[in-house]
Amino acid sequence: MAVYTDVGDDALTEFLSAYDLGAVLAFKGIAEGVENSNFYLKTEAGSFILTLYEKRVREEQLPFFLNLMEHLAAHGISCPQPIRNRSGTALGHLAGRPAALVSFLEGLSVKSPTAVHCRALGGALAALHIAGTGFSMTRPNDLSLDAWRPLLEASGSRADTVTPDLKSRLDQEVDFLERHWPRDLPTGVIHADLFTDNVFFLGEQVSGIIDFYFACTDALAYDLAICLNAWCFEADNSYNLTKGRAMIGGYQAVRPLDQLEIDAFPVLCRGSAMRFCLTRLYDWLNVPPGAMVHPKDPLEYDRKVAFHRHIVHASEYGFLS
Amino acid sequence: MAVYTDVGDDALTEFLSAYDLGAVLAFKGIAEGVENSNFYLKTEAGSFILTLYEKRVREEQLPFFLNLMEHLAAHGISCPQPIRNRSGTALGHLAGRPAALVSFLEGLSVKSPTAVHCRALGGALAALHIAGTGFSMTRPNDLSLDAWRPLLEASGSRADTVTPDLKSRLDQEVDFLERHWPRDLPTGVIHADLFTDNVFFLGEQVSGIIDFYFACTDALAYDLAICLNAWCFEADNSYNLTKGRAMIGGYQAVRPLDQLEIDAFPVLCRGSAMRFCLTRLYDWLNVPPGAMVHPKDPLEYDRKVAFHRHIVHASEYGFLS
Repeated sequence: MAVYTDVGDDALTEFLSAYDLGAVLAFKGIAEGVENSNFYLKTEAGSFILTLYEKRVREEQLPFFLNLMEHLAAHGISCPQPIRNRSGTALGHLAGRPAALVSFLEGLSVKSPTAVHCRALGGALAALHIAGTGFSMTRPNDLSLDAWRPLLEASGSRADTVTPDLKSRLDQEVDFLERHWPRDLPTGVIHADLFTDNVFFLGEQVSGIIDFYFACTDALAYDLAICLNAWCFEADNSYNLTKGRAMIGGYQAVRPLDQLEIDAFPVLCRGSAMRFCLTRLYDWLNVPPGAMVHPKDPLEYDRKVAFHRHIVHASEYGFLS
Repeated sequence: MAVYTDVGDDALTEFLSAYDLGAVLAFKGIAEGVENSNFYLKTEAGSFILTLYEKRVREEQLPFFLNLMEHLAAHGISCPQPIRNRSGTALGHLAGRPAALVSFLEGLSVKSPTAVHCRALGGALAALHIAGTGFSMTRPNDLSLDAWRPLLEASGSRADTVTPDLKSRLDQEVDFLERHWPRDLPTGVIHADLFTDNVFFLGEQVSGIIDFYFACTDALAYDLAICLNAWCFEADNSYNLTKGRAMIGGYQAVRPLDQLEIDAFPVLCRGSAMRFCLTRLYDWLNVPPGAMVHPKDPLEYDRKVAFHRHIVHASEYGFLS
């Protein structure tokens, strides 16, 4: 949950005076996103989300994210659409932060996705990848392979205060990933953070995808591996093959993976589990005083790494051969 | 800000199945209220607020609050109106907590009220007091005079860790209030917590009053004293006489105070400042580990007590004689 920044009365009025949205009817901080401050805004023109970008998001990268959302929305993906003000600008400033207004999306995020949700998500992810094809901007994935060794070093031996031997286990895993990371897979725009709270459903259909602030240019199949980790494991960290099969099937029905991608899938799953293990570990060890957000458990993803380490062939995830 | 409790997918569906509100279109935790978990809910039938009552609210008292809101709404006050389910019940259970659904109110709370807002608030408060006249239920104010000595003892000498001599200063103040507390003032339903975040405006008009979970039966003028403390002091704790005069004038235009109430007003202001000083002090000294809410500064209200101690006559607040 997240509202880090208070917005003053006059500041909001001044910010909105650059838009043609009519009178403000409601404005409420909402518990959505953990990186930024988000507000529900209702005006005579409709409902919107106002986002204030907090420290983790670098302002010079915001045009990538905003232009991407605009591109995807224009290509049939239901995602927040940046609202341009009278000067044609989508990115402004409010309360000392970069700020943007986007369209409000209907739908509910599911906390316990079923196989039906997983299949729908797979299809929506593939559609997103296809819609992203013509997007001209690129952004490197700064939380991929090259980041993992420095991230691990930043936690250092304190990793072992979380669980014994974690540091050496993760060290070995990074070694493995550096040696086996696939380099020649089809790339494009990936969401890179498509956890359940970033996907809205109406009934069993995906009605919206939000929070594109980790989006980047990377292997498309890596995005599917992120989703598989986020959606297809049970609370006890067992892998639900039915859900995995549904998600992979849903994806392939829209964008079939090629053999290189399938062969690389177990390593991509290990890598994506590693990425979330390492960032969670860092956050776990560096909770700022007075933080309003509980850090997420890094060991959940340590256990996922261990699971993937024992996979011999992608078919074990539910790929039909 | 507050969302303390997660609501599971099935739990929400089951809870709402008792209502006739159509399909759910959006559901978001919102940063409103510090005692309970609040969610914005949009369904085919409209917009609502779902409240899950957390530990500080005692379930047996909820009918008082819900019936009061229903009574006030029926008597022309714009406040959240409890939604009854098909069995005619407004109070249910969700995620292990008592829960209620109320109507969504449009409007914005102001962070820096002007004298115009203060005048409007005064009038709205008086209207609320008049609308509450026929309400048949009563509830003692369990955070008034009788609670202050025990509250102070609960903080004990730790008060002096906040600022030197706070304990003895507050002790003397409670002594004074016990000797001078007025007993024969007109009573009725009071809101008892009408801070700026509990009042919505559209333009310069009050569009709604929320958060009735401290409402109780007490001296009506005490409610005005609470508002004066919450609305008419500047950030540097100076008293803004223009705002005070506007609020008192706005109140008196709707419900003129009698001479007893006016004479008692300085003591009521001291008492209401004391009430918030003591509860804030207790909260300040007892922040639970992992709390998602920053405690409010008790010294702000210690300074207000000091201000009121030097008032000789109510006219100094802006009462016109």
